Amino acid sequence: MTNCTTIALLSGGLDSTTAVAMAKELDQTVIGLSFDYGQRHRRELEAASELATTLNLSEHHIIEVNLATWGGSSLTDLTQSLPNQGVIKDVIPNTYVPGRNTVFIAIGLSLAEARKADRLVLGINAMDYSGYPDCRPDYLSAYQDLADLATKSGREGHGTQLWAPLLHWHKREIIQEALRLGVPIEKTWSCYSDKDQPCGICDSCRIRDAALRESGRSDLCSN
Amino acid sequence: MTNCTTIALLSGGLDSTTAVAMAKELDQTVIGLSFDYGQRHRRELEAASELATTLNLSEHHIIEVNLATWGGSSLTDLTQSLPNQGVIKDVIPNTYVPGRNTVFIAIGLSLAEARKADRLVLGINAMDYSGYPDCRPDYLSAYQDLADLATKSGREGHGTQLWAPLLHWHKREIIQEALRLGVPIEKTWSCYSDKDQPCGICDSCRIRDAALRESGRSDLCSN
Repeated sequence: MTNCTTIALLSGGLDSTTAVAMAKELDQTVIGLSFDYGQRHRRELEAASELATTLNLSEHHIIEVNLATWGGSSLTDLTQSLPNQGVIKDVIPNTYVPGRNTVFIAIGLSLAEARKADRLVLGINAMDYSGYPDCRPDYLSAYQDLADLATKSGREGHGTQLWAPLLHWHKREIIQEALRLGVPIEKTWSCYSDKDQPCGICDSCRIRDAALRESGRSDLCSN
Repeated sequence: MTNCTTIALLSGGLDSTTAVAMAKELDQTVIGLSFDYGQRHRRELEAASELATTLNLSEHHIIEVNLATWGGSSLTDLTQSLPNQGVIKDVIPNTYVPGRNTVFIAIGLSLAEARKADRLVLGINAMDYSGYPDCRPDYLSAYQDLADLATKSGREGHGTQLWAPLLHWHKREIIQEALRLGVPIEKTWSCYSDKDQPCGICDSCRIRDAALRESGRSDLCSN
């Protein structure tokens, strides 16, 4: 285990929680960062808080940044319906939130600079939602270039590294890693709905449930 | 005047207000965006609101994103003192807020994508605070590369353009432009302090007052 400090974006979902657990395996100090951005599924923040405790994070911050002020997504505008017909390849679904990852990573970089962190770990992956522009490898690479210029430490060559270990993984590989690391999958919240229990029909539930079944863990499915 | 839509980051200070007035001269629809980020000089938000009305902006949003949660700057951490010895060339003063411009531009891009805006206008300049890493031309250029990849419209070649018309201007040139455009300079708030009147001794007051005197407008100085 290194003496590095990692900032971890923790939505409370399966992917980010697995990425956090990977960081915890490597680094001594892991600081969680979650966002109250006006999301429909605000329930995920309860999961994030509980997981931050379970995973023994050094700090956990929930920052408010209300992207629902201008909407533009079914996750931040309740007048839009969630898609429930399954993922269509290369089409950006209306669950895409304009600028969300760009905003979240920027705030993560602010915290990273204040804490002199070495890494910023992200649970994003490009496989399941190939249409999202802000989950692609070239986007992340451009963000690293920006991060290297944006801060004093970056310009001096020891800035924060963006680390997206799940970028090229399929969901079933993420689940295998979560199981290996002992991630409490039952405590994570991936559902897009604002219900008390996972809906089982939104894209996020469908992808998660299908991969859990493939992994022989249908007992963890939403239905 | 074009039919373009511009998002304008409006701090309430002289620079951003001048940039907004430049955008208003060009574009029909200008939407103002300000940030309550835990700044010491929260007084600037009152100026921003008043200026948004005076400049007849189409909308004005104030978004909360509390960077004071982790401090790291004399503007967001009241235990640090503001510098009052004048600007030292190529030294980053403690008024630098980690990641601030990266966060603000990211949120601006979110609003820009939601409103299908053509431009995001910024009042930043690289002349007076040459030490700030996030006010330099190479930083802005890297952010444009990121913006082009971050959004659907950017990837299709018609994304939001970052426009920093004051980037290479000295403060006295900014004042000349403000006077030409009829910007109500007396309503702008540049001071870093949390006082009711500009302190006249912080870096921001010093640079502004010196340039106002050079421009023959000492009547607008803070003291």
